[in-house]
Amino acid sequence: MKAELISVGTELLLGNIVNTNASFLAEQCARLGISVYYQSVVGDNKERLSETLKTALSRSDVVILTGGLGPTKDDLTKETVAEVLGRQLVEDAHSRKRIEAYFAGSRHRIIPDNNWKQAQIPEGAIAVDNENGTAPGIIAEHNGKTVIMLPGPPNEMIPMFTISIAPFLNRLQPEVIYSQTVKICGLGESLVETMIGDLIDGQSNPTVAPYAKTGEVHLRITAKAPDKESAFRLIEPVSAELAKRFGNHIYSTDDKETLEESIASLLKKKNLTIATAESCTGGLVSGRLVNVPGVSDVFKAGFVTYANEAKTEFLGVSEETLRAYGAVSEQTAEEMARGGASKAGCDLCISVTGIAGPDGGTDDKPVGLVYMGCFLNGKVTVRKFIFKGNRSKIRENAVVNALIFVRDCILEDIE
Amino acid sequence: MKAELISVGTELLLGNIVNTNASFLAEQCARLGISVYYQSVVGDNKERLSETLKTALSRSDVVILTGGLGPTKDDLTKETVAEVLGRQLVEDAHSRKRIEAYFAGSRHRIIPDNNWKQAQIPEGAIAVDNENGTAPGIIAEHNGKTVIMLPGPPNEMIPMFTISIAPFLNRLQPEVIYSQTVKICGLGESLVETMIGDLIDGQSNPTVAPYAKTGEVHLRITAKAPDKESAFRLIEPVSAELAKRFGNHIYSTDDKETLEESIASLLKKKNLTIATAESCTGGLVSGRLVNVPGVSDVFKAGFVTYANEAKTEFLGVSEETLRAYGAVSEQTAEEMARGGASKAGCDLCISVTGIAGPDGGTDDKPVGLVYMGCFLNGKVTVRKFIFKGNRSKIRENAVVNALIFVRDCILEDIE
Repeated sequence: MKAELISVGTELLLGNIVNTNASFLAEQCARLGISVYYQSVVGDNKERLSETLKTALSRSDVVILTGGLGPTKDDLTKETVAEVLGRQLVEDAHSRKRIEAYFAGSRHRIIPDNNWKQAQIPEGAIAVDNENGTAPGIIAEHNGKTVIMLPGPPNEMIPMFTISIAPFLNRLQPEVIYSQTVKICGLGESLVETMIGDLIDGQSNPTVAPYAKTGEVHLRITAKAPDKESAFRLIEPVSAELAKRFGNHIYSTDDKETLEESIASLLKKKNLTIATAESCTGGLVSGRLVNVPGVSDVFKAGFVTYANEAKTEFLGVSEETLRAYGAVSEQTAEEMARGGASKAGCDLCISVTGIAGPDGGTDDKPVGLVYMGCFLNGKVTVRKFIFKGNRSKIRENAVVNALIFVRDCILEDIE
Repeated sequence: MKAELISVGTELLLGNIVNTNASFLAEQCARLGISVYYQSVVGDNKERLSETLKTALSRSDVVILTGGLGPTKDDLTKETVAEVLGRQLVEDAHSRKRIEAYFAGSRHRIIPDNNWKQAQIPEGAIAVDNENGTAPGIIAEHNGKTVIMLPGPPNEMIPMFTISIAPFLNRLQPEVIYSQTVKICGLGESLVETMIGDLIDGQSNPTVAPYAKTGEVHLRITAKAPDKESAFRLIEPVSAELAKRFGNHIYSTDDKETLEESIASLLKKKNLTIATAESCTGGLVSGRLVNVPGVSDVFKAGFVTYANEAKTEFLGVSEETLRAYGAVSEQTAEEMARGGASKAGCDLCISVTGIAGPDGGTDDKPVGLVYMGCFLNGKVTVRKFIFKGNRSKIRENAVVNALIFVRDCILEDIE
């Protein structure tokens, strides 16, 4: 099955926003085993949208449009689709009630007239509930093709797609598609690809596809089968093989779990508390930990000791160490981690000190040099990194490698 | 002049990466006064790319392609464009030398054979130097239309566009286009739009266009004129008018300066040092400050006191206050700011404490409630916010509003 994406919105054409809707939908389609060969962006313009839609319908089975379903005159996705399909717009009673209920629960009790426009859908189409806004999604079948219209705001579109559209698309397919994601940290993308080369070569069902992000590689195992159970039976041996190959480098097989969430669970399970002691990352490591709701059970305190005096005063790094080895050194990282754990009264403390640039590098200590210390059970392990890229890239890499370091130390401690 | 963007790459079709190239180029075109009515994404597929390019050439004056200029067999943008334009690929001697020089300076001294493919360009086309990679950019003129091919990696594409392509496009236009960005913080998007409604209505040259990002609104003034000086003469009175209307809410008129950079400059100018005391933002406020190279002159230390005990121990918040008013209260924010400044020995300290959710909200203290305190000159000012959205949105809003709060306090202190 071939799908095509059309994103509607002048703000996309002006480069005012990045088209994250298209990447989300493309990834979801890939996950459902649906091929996407084309994506387009057009403005809120009837003629150009109409032309783009006609081209899409001529070459794809499913056309997914996002945006242009708002209440204003500028929004004309629905009107244009209805025209291209030769349908009238009619009011959907259920959507009208839903809009009424939506406004009843909001601060704006008076419903602007133009919001009723949002209850209209092309004759014979299906309205899809929007749990986070007024515009319903719309599914219209036409000569064996399917046109799906979704609202533009990602916080409305993503839940609607996940709850209603993905299962609908899955039913359109002769076989169901299920996938599992195996999330790996601490190994580079090329190494991971090399390690699964034999699985990728000549694979058909299930398939394994790698997706890289900073410090992580996600391997998605996707199976097609007549039903969910058979799909899982196909996935299971591949998942077991990956577990054998990557062992502790796998931090999760749950689609939704993030690296910091897996670390927070690990800390909870082991009854460990953590503190952070950061210099060049400036609080971004603790910021990642605080992404996790309820992290207060395990994360107690973080120190951002950017100045040398702060390293001495709040972490107890000795002035002698700073003088002899410098702020970016194995010794300082070691003392920062030890001091942070002691001051915060935590079982574990991760420290980060480095040269993020663009200035401050020397031949001995180039920009990108980062030392990290991890204190656990009275002992500090130190790691040295040399990251490439600009200031923000170096710091981003340092943050994720600090998290991986923490995870490694906990896992080694367990063994 | 009408331009159209074609992004080439299977990883875009699979949703593996977000198409930031398209938003960058769209914004740059808007800035140059070039209209973009269509953007497309296609995979590395000769037939589909050829079809998309022909459609684009039929309706636009300039077609900008990104991606598919690499050395592998998969990369076939250049081959496809040459075929559509009816040209041969020929070796560009200058590009061959540049590739040789590029490899001479790298760790890989042996040049892989397929890299020579990158020195080829369509006959009669212009090769554009790539300062950050091997693939040259290419400009080919064809029947009064222009096809521009750029490498896909943003760190190669963006400098190449800025240095070579933007001036080239500007020369294609009968008049030059220049713009200035006036960056506003602390006012909502709709309020800013209302305040400049009269300037937007009936504007022609220069134009003013608002661009919103979290906590900020950027107003871009764009003028067309026969030369740079005349363009600036058109921009100047509008810029002055905006300065009059928005006063201190304007933090910069420099395209590249960020909010945190402007705050760091302000602190330096006033000879003030700053500390942070964060709870729900978990270090992201200090993380923003450390975005600024050389911030160590003014930023000394940050405390991430997520646990109540940490608030007491490291910031001196009294247990009595925490018991009586709770961790998310005016009183706690006040004591956090005062304590942070005193412990770090800084002139200024910003504190943030709030309920980022999804749990922990009550009728009295809902999810999204955030108190901030700003200590300066012995006095703490407290602000209360109720932010909407999920945990990450609430924290993102809290971070930028904390920065704006710091800026406001410094400016009030100056007056």
